[in-house]
Amino acid sequence: MSTTTSPHPAPAERASERPAAERREPVYLFSEKNVSEKSEIARRFLDSRERLNANVDKANNFLVKRFYNIDHHAYLEGTLPAKTKELMGLVASACLRCDDCIFYHAIQAYRLGVTRAEQEESLNVALIVAGSILIPHLRRAYELLQEMYG
Amino acid sequence: MSTTTSPHPAPAERASERPAAERREPVYLFSEKNVSEKSEIARRFLDSRERLNANVDKANNFLVKRFYNIDHHAYLEGTLPAKTKELMGLVASACLRCDDCIFYHAIQAYRLGVTRAEQEESLNVALIVAGSILIPHLRRAYELLQEMYG
Amino acid sequence: MSTTTSPHPAPAERASERPAAERREPVYLFSEKNVSEKSEIARRFLDSRERLNANVDKANNFLVKRFYNIDHHAYLEGTLPAKTKELMGLVASACLRCDDCIFYHAIQAYRLGVTRAEQEESLNVALIVAGSILIPHLRRAYELLQEMYG
Amino acid sequence: MSTTTSPHPAPAERASERPAAERREPVYLFSEKNVSEKSEIARRFLDSRERLNANVDKANNFLVKRFYNIDHHAYLEGTLPAKTKELMGLVASACLRCDDCIFYHAIQAYRLGVTRAEQEESLNVALIVAGSILIPHLRRAYELLQEMYG
Amino acid sequence: MSTTTSPHPAPAERASERPAAERREPVYLFSEKNVSEKSEIARRFLDSRERLNANVDKANNFLVKRFYNIDHHAYLEGTLPAKTKELMGLVASACLRCDDCIFYHAIQAYRLGVTRAEQEESLNVALIVAGSILIPHLRRAYELLQEMYG
Amino acid sequence: MSTTTSPHPAPAERASERPAAERREPVYLFSEKNVSEKSEIARRFLDSRERLNANVDKANNFLVKRFYNIDHHAYLEGTLPAKTKELMGLVASACLRCDDCIFYHAIQAYRLGVTRAEQEESLNVALIVAGSILIPHLRRAYELLQEMYG
Repeated sequence: MSTTTSPHPAPAERASERPAAERREPVYLFSEKNVSEKSEIARRFLDSRERLNANVDKANNFLVKRFYNIDHHAYLEGTLPAKTKELMGLVASACLRCDDCIFYHAIQAYRLGVTRAEQEESLNVALIVAGSILIPHLRRAYELLQEMYG
Repeated sequence: MSTTTSPHPAPAERASERPAAERREPVYLFSEKNVSEKSEIARRFLDSRERLNANVDKANNFLVKRFYNIDHHAYLEGTLPAKTKELMGLVASACLRCDDCIFYHAIQAYRLGVTRAEQEESLNVALIVAGSILIPHLRRAYELLQEMYG
Repeated sequence: MSTTTSPHPAPAERASERPAAERREPVYLFSEKNVSEKSEIARRFLDSRERLNANVDKANNFLVKRFYNIDHHAYLEGTLPAKTKELMGLVASACLRCDDCIFYHAIQAYRLGVTRAEQEESLNVALIVAGSILIPHLRRAYELLQEMYG
Repeated sequence: MSTTTSPHPAPAERASERPAAERREPVYLFSEKNVSEKSEIARRFLDSRERLNANVDKANNFLVKRFYNIDHHAYLEGTLPAKTKELMGLVASACLRCDDCIFYHAIQAYRLGVTRAEQEESLNVALIVAGSILIPHLRRAYELLQEMYG
Repeated sequence: MSTTTSPHPAPAERASERPAAERREPVYLFSEKNVSEKSEIARRFLDSRERLNANVDKANNFLVKRFYNIDHHAYLEGTLPAKTKELMGLVASACLRCDDCIFYHAIQAYRLGVTRAEQEESLNVALIVAGSILIPHLRRAYELLQEMYG
Repeated sequence: MSTTTSPHPAPAERASERPAAERREPVYLFSEKNVSEKSEIARRFLDSRERLNANVDKANNFLVKRFYNIDHHAYLEGTLPAKTKELMGLVASACLRCDDCIFYHAIQAYRLGVTRAEQEESLNVALIVAGSILIPHLRRAYELLQEMYG
């Protein structure tokens, strides 16, 4: 394919993505520990996630590590604020109906200072797009929101 | 269930969603016609959508009409800007892999003044969440972006 | 809602859907309490659902409430009997693989007098359409059927 | 197949499914040819399906043939009428968003004498369960319904 | 359709699938009991699966039995080794995000002598294809792998 | 990429994945051009893919490029042969029902010397796991197989 032989486009053509140097870690208003103190659901999720991730880390799988790395990059401050991208992660997780993923992004959004109303409005987009099959996940998400913001 | 017998909560309790009066139609910088003039892909999609929707309208199905109505509400200016919610619709559509839906939200976002970089960064969230199965849809989305922003 | 106060299309145009007045609540042979007494799985599901729905209700989210409202309408007696539509809800839930949704529609169908053989035949359509990935859900559905009908 | 030569379980044990002898082919009011004459969309779909199936047939794959066989059985007259099961196939196909499958079951339902209102009400269940991501498929389904029933 | 009236193709044309006689049960290096002794996760899964399957068996549903039968055939030694097909079952289960199905195929693969590295590389294909939404399932899969191979 | 300059974990820790140096490009028996000459379906797909990828390439999106990079790595010769992983990619693509992805992996597998019988047996795993909703994709896949191997 010609794509591998052609020289890389000049920086001026990079219309769509800031170079790595311009992406940066978001500033969290709350730590995971803060969230765990407010919400028992968050605490159980974060503890289980940490324990299971330690096991994945130990396996030291090359491709998994690369994947985790670009996954991390996708939610950094960039052209769009980290807040917005965490809420997009929430919408995506709700549409694909993964409770753990919904919890993760709802917690991240909370840590970045997203309001409950913003979380609910994001979940509404998911509910309309993906339908009533979401409702059991919505109920569990609202329980977490209640604990975090209540 | 108790929910049907209890009185409705007072407005003060409405923490999560603006009352209908506070939601409003977004202001579009470009009309559908503008987009059709810039992009042949957009034009074909919008024409086909209009033709087929006319047929659905004619059927006058009560529940379909109600559904279209709340679908419309989900993307109004609200707690979150319409721009953000159109991009969330784009992420959701990409994760659930519907070309027509991707085209629709990418066009709406364009009409609201969203930049190409913002569209790409939104698609990146979807790509990470939903994986390489998205790539054929990504390619078609980039073709549309190229025509609209090129 | 504005849709109910605006002038309705003339009856002659309503080829596809009975007007709201012709849709009506189904008659249940059994209450949720009856089902809970027969099945421990049903009891746990219904209790958890009630508790979590109370929380969603308290949030009083405008769009969620609208969505719940048309969701309710979709299963009323209409052109098709409520029984048939609850079984369609069961098929849809099984195809999209949501245990809570499967339990909900299997319980609703039971309450309307649907036989176990009808429930199994509906699940068979889902099994063929959506494949062996359904089998864990099928096993859990059969456990519920066994408790309700056994 | 070994399952047909081995001793069958006694009828008393068959709580949930009629023995094969009690299932029977449905009676179609219309042939595929009739539908093709009414609808250009149906004609193109049925022609393409026949051509491609001939190719699959020629491959004579053992497991594919077995699968087609039980797929055929799932929609026979049984405990539930064939009509109902074709509409369930329609709901399942819409929820899993496969245009060809939607067309197939909508045509089969039409051939069995299902009304347009019944088809629309079935699609409504799918729309509520699976959300707005269905809308492009709904539009195409309504175009087919219009041609078949119009 | 002409396919039902035309004579079956001659055996010489059966390019794609060995006749039933050439497919055979795989040889397992380990029994389910062996796996249960090594892994508590496997034990709980296998016990629950056995208990629930007994219930499905008792129902004696004709179509479910047929489906289980061809499901069994799909993983026999054939043109491809049973090992490879169990790993394909693992990839499919991971892509469709069913923990029970992932556990089942990971255990089957283990019983056939598949190494941990082969299981991880298979899961990597699924991770790339289906994205980060898989990560919670990946974590749980790695916990099982750790117990079985650790 | 920063990941290649940072100190790598010691080989002893790499339980699950060969270090990058041990992964290598597979040897193709046939070029894309060879396949395009045998199959019109392959030719159209490959041409369209090349044209659209050139457009994605031009956008030079940082994260898309990273993603394409690890996507490429996932199918290299590794612990499992590239052949097997292309067939796993085929199974994954069929389960997630993406025609372009099915075509891509079927063509890659063909180029690596996979037989038609092996391709069909892989598709059978997908058919059982993901059900009849796959059938339209199966038909189109068989058409491609017929052209490539016929």
